Amino acid sequence: MQSFKVVIAYDGTDLVGWQRQAAGVSIQGLLEDALRALDERDVTVVGAGRTDAGVHALGQVAAFTLARPLPPESILRALNARLPDAVRVLSAEHAAASFNPRFDARSKTYRYRILNGPVKDPFERRYAWHIAGTLDIAAMDAAARLLEGPHDFAAFRSSGTEVKSTERQILTSRIADCGLRIYCGFEDFHDQSAITNQSAILNPQSAMRLLVYTVEGTGFLRHMVRAIVGSLVEIGLGRREPAWITQLLASRDRAAAGPTAPAEGLFLVRVQYGDAVAAER
Amino acid sequence: MQSFKVVIAYDGTDLVGWQRQAAGVSIQGLLEDALRALDERDVTVVGAGRTDAGVHALGQVAAFTLARPLPPESILRALNARLPDAVRVLSAEHAAASFNPRFDARSKTYRYRILNGPVKDPFERRYAWHIAGTLDIAAMDAAARLLEGPHDFAAFRSSGTEVKSTERQILTSRIADCGLRIYCGFEDFHDQSAITNQSAILNPQSAMRLLVYTVEGTGFLRHMVRAIVGSLVEIGLGRREPAWITQLLASRDRAAAGPTAPAEGLFLVRVQYGDAVAAER
Repeated sequence: MQSFKVVIAYDGTDLVGWQRQAAGVSIQGLLEDALRALDERDVTVVGAGRTDAGVHALGQVAAFTLARPLPPESILRALNARLPDAVRVLSAEHAAASFNPRFDARSKTYRYRILNGPVKDPFERRYAWHIAGTLDIAAMDAAARLLEGPHDFAAFRSSGTEVKSTERQILTSRIADCGLRIYCGFEDFHDQSAITNQSAILNPQSAMRLLVYTVEGTGFLRHMVRAIVGSLVEIGLGRREPAWITQLLASRDRAAAGPTAPAEGLFLVRVQYGDAVAAER
Repeated sequence: MQSFKVVIAYDGTDLVGWQRQAAGVSIQGLLEDALRALDERDVTVVGAGRTDAGVHALGQVAAFTLARPLPPESILRALNARLPDAVRVLSAEHAAASFNPRFDARSKTYRYRILNGPVKDPFERRYAWHIAGTLDIAAMDAAARLLEGPHDFAAFRSSGTEVKSTERQILTSRIADCGLRIYCGFEDFHDQSAITNQSAILNPQSAMRLLVYTVEGTGFLRHMVRAIVGSLVEIGLGRREPAWITQLLASRDRAAAGPTAPAEGLFLVRVQYGDAVAAER
């Protein structure tokens, strides 16, 4: 018996989330089905983070144990040959039998993409939250930073979920202004004058500003990142001051916080483990 | 009665193409249904290019005539409110009653996106052709340039279609190397060190090279751009020399050319008309 660690990327738009469900296609289900064909027995796959329906991953981590002695490269190729192209295994390696991607994780990093502009971009609708109103990015970033540190995040949990503690440690919480993006991907043009002319022919207001919220923490409550983003957008739209975030933390009241931001903007970016975390810092 | 010209972008992945069909959702059908609701009568929409199923547009042009006197801004807003978010109207303006987007076009520009790298990117699978083998970009560009000028493109037409002439005038035909793209969109990160670390954690081979084929012509045969791209990729993979393109043109034989490239990489970028063309040059 040999255990493996894999890193997986997926477009979650048409999936019911990480966890196997009674109906619909899940990432765990796709991997377990592919591994059953490969190992000719039932295989259980454990993931680092249980992403919800519609949420994406750039670096989800999963583990499983196989009876057949296969080199990691063969597992990577065999899985990618069987998986739909919305789900790709990016790397595979041997792991200790004791490796648990969820409980061994030192921290997880999520990002949330917001596109701010007048018209929703058809090529980004699956991968970003479109906000038409003007956003105060500096206020959003000031508010985001108030979440760093150990806090009780009860105000940002999913209502109806039971957990022992709602305290979590957030290491980084920042909003980055990634600048203007030419609407509909015109930036791919090598000829800059073509871009300029094209945006003149099209709606001159069509440039979109990309904001990326990055949050790294040792653990997250269900829907926590999306509840945070929903609250940061309230602040960005000028409906609340940045200090409202501190009041929300103190209130422990989910009803007081902003709406849950839609799933399409959220990406599980990476999961950090022991030595890898140390080496990176 | 007032005629209008609109510029439209769409993600064609889940659509049956521009033209209304017996089954499936077409862009023409979506626009005509939305305009019928707006004008309370049947409205016919004429498009500049009949894009096929799965083909995208950044700047398709369409025209229609309404009985209700509405300002262009209201039409833009009303259409976008009724259309699915895969289809967006980018601009709307008054047009002459005689305006025909197809026959009045001076030229059309298409681009075709190819992503070259070891593993297919789940976030690009709807918008690019993934090629795993190494591509000789200089050879592809040299071949592409041989198509500029007036030629008989019979070797690149869709088999089974009847047209009066297979001669077309190609103004520009170029392959651009748009450089490395970090796999799965990690380039959005503002922290460059995070990108580097991330790509080290993931598959070190995971960077993808983006190639963009841009072709501008006064007219195109059905499937012509995709047949050209299929042939250019044969050359890029080293199976043929660039001069093969000249032989193909002379042969007038569709069976001799490369396979038809898949729809997902193709974008109708823009349609040029009279004065706008003159002003741009």
